[in-house]
Formats: sequence, C-alpha cells, structure tokens
Amino acid sequence: MNLYKRLPKHIGVIPDGNRRWAVSKGLDKKEGYNYGINPGFKLYELCKDMGIEELTLYGFTVDNTKRPAAQKTAFQEACVNAVMDLIDKDAQLLVVGNTQSSCFPKELLPFTKRVKFGSGKIKVNFLVNYGWDWDLKYKGGLASSDISRIDLIIRWGGRRRLSGFLPIQSVYSDIYVLDELWPDFKPNQLYQALDWYQSQDITLGG
Amino acid sequence: MNLYKRLPKHIGVIPDGNRRWAVSKGLDKKEGYNYGINPGFKLYELCKDMGIEELTLYGFTVDNTKRPAAQKTAFQEACVNAVMDLIDKDAQLLVVGNTQSSCFPKELLPFTKRVKFGSGKIKVNFLVNYGWDWDLKYKGGLASSDISRIDLIIRWGGRRRLSGFLPIQSVYSDIYVLDELWPDFKPNQLYQALDWYQSQDITLGG
Repeated sequence: MNLYKRLPKHIGVIPDGNRRWAVSKGLDKKEGYNYGINPGFKLYELCKDMGIEELTLYGFTVDNTKRPAAQKTAFQEACVNAVMDLIDKDAQLLVVGNTQSSCFPKELLPFTKRVKFGSGKIKVNFLVNYGWDWDLKYKGGLASSDISRIDLIIRWGGRRRLSGFLPIQSVYSDIYVLDELWPDFKPNQLYQALDWYQSQDITLGG
Repeated sequence: MNLYKRLPKHIGVIPDGNRRWAVSKGLDKKEGYNYGINPGFKLYELCKDMGIEELTLYGFTVDNTKRPAAQKTAFQEACVNAVMDLIDKDAQLLVVGNTQSSCFPKELLPFTKRVKFGSGKIKVNFLVNYGWDWDLKYKGGLASSDISRIDLIIRWGGRRRLSGFLPIQSVYSDIYVLDELWPDFKPNQLYQALDWYQSQDITLGG
C-alpha cells in the first residue's frame, strides 16, 4: 500500500487500447473489450481502498458507435456486464449517456439516476453512449451535471488527447498518459500516475 | 526547413512558464511576460512559412486576473504590445475574450472582430481575458465560435493540462507538452511537436 501526501478526489479514466491489445494477441479487434472489464474492477478496488471519492470511466461514446457492428455489440455488452458485476460491490453508480438513441443499452436505464450498492463507499460514473456535444446541448443544463470536476485523468494506450471526455469537468484536470494498453493494466500504473499527481501544483487556472 | 507528411491545420499554443523563467533568471515574476512576446513572433513566422492555416495563442485568462496587480498589469501590457507588433505583419487577427470586464485592455477592442493585416496569410487568434465558462455561457452560442477545431495543442512549461483553454475546440486535439519554459522557445521545440503529431492517428473520437 503506497502512501500519498495528496490524493485526487476524483479520477477520470480513459481505458484505451483494447483493440490494439486484441490484435497484438492474435485476436479479433472486438474481443479486446471483454478483456477490459477485469482491469476496471481491479482499478475500482484500488481506488476504493485508498479512499478516492469519485471515479469516472469512459465506457463508449456516440463517436465510437460508428465502428463496425460487431465491435459496437462487443463494447455495449462489455459495458452492461461491467455494471451487472458492480451490483454486489460498494459503490454509488451513475450511468451518463444519450438514452434517446438505440445505441444505449436498455439494461442500463435503471442506473441513469444514481443508485447505491452495498455501503456505497465510492461514487462511480460510467459514460455509456456519451457524446460531448450531447452533454453540452442538453436541455436545462449539462447532462453530466451530477459529475464533479475531475482532478486527475489517466489515459491508457499512449494517445495524448481527451477524445471528447467530459470537456467541462476536464478544464483544469491534470492528464497522465500511460503507454500500456488498458487490458494490460497493473496496479503500478495507477501508483505511477498518483506519484506524478502529488508533485503537481493545483492552480485551477489561477 | 523540415518537411512533414502531415501538418496540423490549426495549432493551439499554451505559452506557460514566464514567471518560473523570470525567477530562474533572478528577475521579478512579472518581468517574465515581456520575454514571452518575441518567442510568440518567432513561432508565428515559422508557422506562417510552413503554411499552417490557423494559430491560437493563450494570452491571459479571467482566472489569471486574480494574480497580484503588478503581474496583471504586466501580462495585459504584453498582450497589447504583441498585437501592436502584429499590425505590420501578414495575419488575420481575432482577439477573443470578455470585453465587458475592466481587465480587458481597451486598446484591443478594435480586434474583437477579425482584422486583416498585410496579405493576411494566416489566421491568428489571441485569447485575452478569456474564460472557458464565459465562452460557453455566451448569449447566442459560443463566444469563440469563429475559432475552428484545434488539431494540435503545444504547451510549454511542463504542465500536462488544458487550464481552461477552449474546451470545445480542444475535444479531439492532440496535446504535446514541452518541459522547456516559454521564454526559452527554440524552433526545434516546434519541430519536435510536429514530428510527434504526424505519427498520431486522427480518429476524431471514432
């Protein structure tokens, strides 16, 4: 167990690289998504145990649904399975995404208002069929208004960009990019990001 | 002159580190801003000569105006001087920022609609007293709606974050961070960012 002098309250996660990982293992691209579920739970447990208050994970986006149908089905199923596995854990879950589209898995509709599982120790936000423009143009304010400002964004898979991830909550976020692909998640990668984060100053743009 | 197989159409620049640079030279923090003007012109000339179509520079933000008065005056003056020096060059200038506040330098009001200097070869957007929330809450749409999507953001000074820089235009931007402080700008730093950029795939979130 590492000790940190300053931990982020809210971590955003961009779990990229599932398809590249699958290809590297000689699998079909679509098979990669399934291997992204367990890493999410490992990360969730570590964050919960360290007392992180809020965790937001990029499931899939409206942009992603333009991918081939087999991939689309695969990442939709992976998101549904991830939520079903979270039910017996200790989280307050909120699924945020465009439910008006057929791309949104109906099984996740009950979780579009925050639901408490077990002791509800940590807030978990899961972006499913999320679109940054959908979020901003939402009637009556931000669709993601129940998601707080993000302190630290960790992106796996080497790309140095946000790819539409919660533009408002990310305006002041420190962004840490890991070259490792998401299915290769190891606890040490999280610790590395947290080590880096505690050395950053917080100015909120000031 | 380097040759690139793929250049960004639009580069965003976060010229951070002026105050840290000043302190490292035994100067007052506020003196750093003045040393940030020439680097901007060097970068501008390089981008113009390479055929970059649009360049957006972070001048100062509404958040920045909470800094000590002497610093505030210094970065306001630096922004005014930069614009005055641009007048005899070949750019189409647009200054974007909250003009309703006393922090906005009145000398820059004529440039809040795009103005063509010389042959107007490159669009230059300069964010002056810019606020991301001001931008988004603007009556009748985005205040920065005349600024296009940004392909590549280059940040000097080592911080890995956007600090409120045009959240909408930045949703898909590739972000390149240089550890060097902005007043230490060298052409090679730009080339390094462009080298990296041409190796990135462009998916626009897909």
